[in-house]
Amino acid sequence: MSRKKAAPARPQRVTVIAVGDELLNGFIVNTNAAWLGRALAGVGCTVVHGHTIGDSVESIASTITSALPGSDVVVISGGLGPTSDDRTRAGMARAAGVELARHAEAEQALRDHLSQQGREPLVQHLVQVDLPDGATPLINSAGTAPGVRMVIGGVLVVALPGPPGELRAVAETGLLPELRRRGGVVRTKSLRTALMPESEVAALVGPIEAKHPEVTIAYLAAPAEVVVRLTASGADEKTLGSVVDEASEDVREVLGDAVVGDADLSLAQAVVGLLAKAARTVAVAESLTGGSVASAITDVPGASVVLRGGVVCYSTESKRDVLGVDPELLDREGPVHAGVAREMAARARELFGADYGVGTTGVAGPAPQGERPVGRVHVAVVGPTTTVDVELHLHGDREAIRRQAAVQALDLLRRTVLGLPPRKGAVSD
Amino acid sequence: MSRKKAAPARPQRVTVIAVGDELLNGFIVNTNAAWLGRALAGVGCTVVHGHTIGDSVESIASTITSALPGSDVVVISGGLGPTSDDRTRAGMARAAGVELARHAEAEQALRDHLSQQGREPLVQHLVQVDLPDGATPLINSAGTAPGVRMVIGGVLVVALPGPPGELRAVAETGLLPELRRRGGVVRTKSLRTALMPESEVAALVGPIEAKHPEVTIAYLAAPAEVVVRLTASGADEKTLGSVVDEASEDVREVLGDAVVGDADLSLAQAVVGLLAKAARTVAVAESLTGGSVASAITDVPGASVVLRGGVVCYSTESKRDVLGVDPELLDREGPVHAGVAREMAARARELFGADYGVGTTGVAGPAPQGERPVGRVHVAVVGPTTTVDVELHLHGDREAIRRQAAVQALDLLRRTVLGLPPRKGAVSD
Repeated sequence: MSRKKAAPARPQRVTVIAVGDELLNGFIVNTNAAWLGRALAGVGCTVVHGHTIGDSVESIASTITSALPGSDVVVISGGLGPTSDDRTRAGMARAAGVELARHAEAEQALRDHLSQQGREPLVQHLVQVDLPDGATPLINSAGTAPGVRMVIGGVLVVALPGPPGELRAVAETGLLPELRRRGGVVRTKSLRTALMPESEVAALVGPIEAKHPEVTIAYLAAPAEVVVRLTASGADEKTLGSVVDEASEDVREVLGDAVVGDADLSLAQAVVGLLAKAARTVAVAESLTGGSVASAITDVPGASVVLRGGVVCYSTESKRDVLGVDPELLDREGPVHAGVAREMAARARELFGADYGVGTTGVAGPAPQGERPVGRVHVAVVGPTTTVDVELHLHGDREAIRRQAAVQALDLLRRTVLGLPPRKGAVSD
Repeated sequence: MSRKKAAPARPQRVTVIAVGDELLNGFIVNTNAAWLGRALAGVGCTVVHGHTIGDSVESIASTITSALPGSDVVVISGGLGPTSDDRTRAGMARAAGVELARHAEAEQALRDHLSQQGREPLVQHLVQVDLPDGATPLINSAGTAPGVRMVIGGVLVVALPGPPGELRAVAETGLLPELRRRGGVVRTKSLRTALMPESEVAALVGPIEAKHPEVTIAYLAAPAEVVVRLTASGADEKTLGSVVDEASEDVREVLGDAVVGDADLSLAQAVVGLLAKAARTVAVAESLTGGSVASAITDVPGASVVLRGGVVCYSTESKRDVLGVDPELLDREGPVHAGVAREMAARARELFGADYGVGTTGVAGPAPQGERPVGRVHVAVVGPTTTVDVELHLHGDREAIRRQAAVQALDLLRRTVLGLPPRKGAVSD
């Protein structure tokens, strides 16, 4: 890398401390850690150590203290709520050797927030604005517990609320911008693929790792979806950017039309964007996916422009009576059949007056349905000029099968709108 | 607690160390931690500290060494595989001050395993049976990397492979039975509530914490749902059981009909169970929830007995044309209105021939809808003899509003089936 004038920023070493008995005893999965890891990497920080500890002032204080020497930043998640087991504020105060005191500004913000709902603060609410002396509250647009920012022994210590929506809201406004200013430069690019097994993605992308040794390539697999992430770090922003762009173009080329797009967008977001751009609408008829395809589409802000509606026809009678699937076909073949999926898609399209119709039927389990084994799924898409369907033989539990079927439905819609044929072969390892 | 003859077993303090760069940078979610937490609690162990560290011999060794003084057992997950970034065996050896050596018995087991598949071991395979001197391999029925068991400084140190299926297989045969013999007894009970803010739950349950000091009470909040968990540990199983039962009855009493049931069941599972027991069926008509109520119900195995079907009528036209909501009402009041929610519920009930109909309409955001602000939601349930509806003024982002509306829909259905009136007031903090 060429010599430039030394950047004042440098990669920040972060220790993340997750607080909560419910994490230690396995009552909940700590999804915050992964979100924080990705978000921190995105602003040039490296998580060097993660801790999970219980709801005790003493262990919060001692873990903060032990983390200070090896960290530039300590991020704490959880323990900021209103109940007696929320001890993070007290733990920070003890680590800093200061007292807790009611923070006037934070109290006013809390009172304003509650009065909008016609409520008065309870004692439990007010506990949330008892902050360590010298600490600053961080605005929480998604709840009542503010984040807490302070400096202890020269190290930035920031506490975020535990509920994931609140953690993200506070981190995005109160933590990441400050770290972005401190950190070095990291360039990442992530591509989302659908319906290609991780082993196949890795086999195709492998040679590109050798070609671009300065780029780190990682894979993140979910049922029927794989994200390929490319990362490079250093000090020269411009070089980094072109290095990552080049490698990402190579990845796009080998993976072809299995690439849905940038991984910052979900598959549903990509499909809604595609339909909106083409000024096309869609309606869905769901059996085994039970509303999850419609729900994924309506998760996307602005979905009302493209989704005309949907029918969840879980019973054979509702396929016949509500949707109007041919009774003879249902009698002859049963509900798990390619022709039924095609008719479901066509009827949904007609019923709601949409440009595209999507149909899903199959056996999610746990029990087989007549002669159809668990995992047998049919998905169809009917458009203005085409009808396509695929038969899947899926593995995994009920949840995994439903999820893969929903991905298949969304991706078959994407491919049909783009004029691509359905993908053949296995969709997951 | 009464004096009994001293039990030889006592609760074991466990430190769990998760090894892997991919955990620190957030590329994968550490689901092993939650599984281990629950499994260890089930054999009378308490996880006192969790660590997440990178793939380095030095940090593995130093984290083990630092954990020894406060632990009876150290459990390590990950880093036992065949590749160059699998360093757990070397880290254990360094912590114990011993060398790695090929373990003859483990090598033979590996050769036998591979030869059953007609394969010879590669160099990469054999690395997996280079164990610290004095360590014992633990059989892995789900893969090729054995677990590793040794004693360092009087503390049991056990390493498990990282892939979840392999971790569980090795833990169940090689770790949990030994811990069950060493550990004490833990009793827990968890109750799920719906539509009561966490601050209100905590205010009501607080006095019970004082009444039962031997029981630890914790709260876990999700949008519009709170789980209250009671835990007690010790040596006398019978006493513990009755102590937890008594406290849990007290909690039930103060929280009243906000308690949905045992927290092992989701709200949707509880509702499906209730309907199945009453031999009643349901159909849903969803606008802002966009299929997520139907999807939550169909997530439950056996949902087909109670769910007749659903309609996602996201557009005003589909409310009128597909569902048959009164066009005059829609013209006069717009789609976000109590009367529309009631009609949606009634039409869904008729269309699918169900006992109960559920209707949801409202503004999820990001933009208001005419005069209706973001967060204004109407939910209605129509049953054989009753029609109920509630108006909600919800806060949070699109996802939080949709989630709270879905919880309200499921819980209003639960309350109506039980003959309870709708809950009034705020549903979340």
